[in-house]
Amino acid sequence: MLLLDVDHIGIAVSDLGAAVEEYRAALRAEPAHREVVEHQGVEEVFFRTGSSFIQLLGALGADTPVGRFLARRGEGLHHVAYRVHDLEAALEQMRAARVPLIDETPRPGSRGTMVAFIHPKGFRGVLVELVQGP
Amino acid sequence: MLLLDVDHIGIAVSDLGAAVEEYRAALRAEPAHREVVEHQGVEEVFFRTGSSFIQLLGALGADTPVGRFLARRGEGLHHVAYRVHDLEAALEQMRAARVPLIDETPRPGSRGTMVAFIHPKGFRGVLVELVQGP
Repeated sequence: MLLLDVDHIGIAVSDLGAAVEEYRAALRAEPAHREVVEHQGVEEVFFRTGSSFIQLLGALGADTPVGRFLARRGEGLHHVAYRVHDLEAALEQMRAARVPLIDETPRPGSRGTMVAFIHPKGFRGVLVELVQGP
Repeated sequence: MLLLDVDHIGIAVSDLGAAVEEYRAALRAEPAHREVVEHQGVEEVFFRTGSSFIQLLGALGADTPVGRFLARRGEGLHHVAYRVHDLEAALEQMRAARVPLIDETPRPGSRGTMVAFIHPKGFRGVLVELVQGP
């Protein structure tokens, strides 16, 4: 199996502060990490659940990928990220299976990771992110 | 933290057989489990990834929850399921935090589990399922 585990579940939210408060109250948990990723146009807040994270995604502006997603679809599930051992090899395996890629090569993600997005056409409408740990 | 881990990520697909073949080829993995859940109107195929599963969901008919979801939204992410230690206690905690429930009491899920769904309004547009293991 190519995918080692779920790394995180990305959820687009229109009001990050309010969403964090709701998740805190419902789950009785504190965020594990916060980070602004300027080049992706998002602020991310992570809650840990076992070996994975719930990632709340706030847009830094309307003209960002998450901003456009919110305008088109509203709040909700945005992508699923899976951990892989070797991101370059994983992308090569995807190419061999004719899965359409968004990122042909790894690029920096949050938390010191390297990431690549796979086109939703390759996974039945699910935007998939592959993550290689720092 | 109420949620022990991600149990599975539910993905609605219009052609379960074709979707399973695509996931097998892309991930180089065999399904871990298959089950028809008549009372929910679905057939489920699970791929294991670490401590979690990817669950492909095929509708048993148009007039089922997944059938209606496919007609309205198309293929894609349908729900996220989290493992909890004590499902009754988890539902009580949700009620205390004023999170709207779909299932007020646990009901049987697949794989011998007990499950309850939480309304998407409670988690920013994400349909959440809580799962207590067999």
